[in-house]
Amino acid sequence: MDELIEKIILFRDERDWKQFHDPKDLALSISLESSELLELFQWKSSQEAIDQHHSDMRDEIADVLIYTLTLAHDLNIDVKNAILQKINKNAEKYPTAQFKGSSNKYTTQND
Amino acid sequence: MDELIEKIILFRDERDWKQFHDPKDLALSISLESSELLELFQWKSSQEAIDQHHSDMRDEIADVLIYTLTLAHDLNIDVKNAILQKINKNAEKYPTAQFKGSSNKYTTQND
Amino acid sequence: MDELIEKIILFRDERDWKQFHDPKDLALSISLESSELLELFQWKSSQEAIDQHHSDMRDEIADVLIYTLTLAHDLNIDVKNAILQKINKNAEKYPTAQFKGSSNKYTTQND
Amino acid sequence: MDELIEKIILFRDERDWKQFHDPKDLALSISLESSELLELFQWKSSQEAIDQHHSDMRDEIADVLIYTLTLAHDLNIDVKNAILQKINKNAEKYPTAQFKGSSNKYTTQND
Repeated sequence: MDELIEKIILFRDERDWKQFHDPKDLALSISLESSELLELFQWKSSQEAIDQHHSDMRDEIADVLIYTLTLAHDLNIDVKNAILQKINKNAEKYPTAQFKGSSNKYTTQND
Repeated sequence: MDELIEKIILFRDERDWKQFHDPKDLALSISLESSELLELFQWKSSQEAIDQHHSDMRDEIADVLIYTLTLAHDLNIDVKNAILQKINKNAEKYPTAQFKGSSNKYTTQND
Repeated sequence: MDELIEKIILFRDERDWKQFHDPKDLALSISLESSELLELFQWKSSQEAIDQHHSDMRDEIADVLIYTLTLAHDLNIDVKNAILQKINKNAEKYPTAQFKGSSNKYTTQND
Repeated sequence: MDELIEKIILFRDERDWKQFHDPKDLALSISLESSELLELFQWKSSQEAIDQHHSDMRDEIADVLIYTLTLAHDLNIDVKNAILQKINKNAEKYPTAQFKGSSNKYTTQND
């Protein structure tokens, strides 16, 4: 992961592009790239979308990750720790005993 | 990275939640989480937003990454390779010699 | 329509809020409100979502429209003409004779 | 407004396209169109974006409105009443006396 982030930032630094990367615009770009990913599923079932656009999905997922790792880097956020702590938080919120196989999270809430 | 993805998938499998994770809904969730991240910047400059919401940004970035890594896993996409190839593609599209310090990508295009 | 726009702008002017309505933030707000609308469908079929959230959908649709009409107003865009011209443009792009009952727009393109 | 909605629905019915308009996909389309609108502001100040893309903004605003009015129609939502009631709700939440010229809504909340 650290190596990937390093390559992403190196790519930017070689072009001197940090000056354009206002965090608000980076957050906006993550949202736009995730919309381009979602667009591949528009008017389609998941299976139809995957059959037609698997390679584009790969590119769009890469774009979402590149911008997200860039923003995390600029905000001094350690993504590995952030993810692990979020998993722990979710594990407390949704204990296995109570939520195993249960669709409660998916039918009663929106998050 | 592989270890992180493993933990994310383990969290899901312990709860038997894969059945709810239709890829189209995962793509939609990436978009919704990225909107929650973006919302932290609404009506604010980057600096104001960071001063007020840095810890929330960390959580929302984790959510975007968790859903994106989950979708990539379910689509059999190797995110490390996907990112490296996307960087190479971008490096060809924006050669250093021509784009160093140039705002052309940022002023003439929308991508 | 003109009357509705007038009421929306009056609400804002009574509170002296135009100063906060930078067009970029308004566009961002339209996107965030449309995500809140979309969130009501997350993890659900359309029918399940409608059964559970019809009244929330009404509110979110109102929010999307309020921000969109506000931005249009601030950009001096006549929404009625904009919509009519867009319909005409679409009518040329998708002539009835060729596209009647055809899912071509919906299966081969993404727009 | 009613006349506009009628024209939008007529355009669809002439092509027999209602069959493709699942409400979840319409909500998704509103979100995607609003992202296309937002994309016109990416990496730019509002003024730069308006100078470069005013005519595209008009088209994207029309797209957002067309899909939103279509979804409202299919959900039997009277948009005029929905907007007026939302304005009233907001008027109670943000009384003029207390919020006039105040940026409280814009600095302390995210909605």
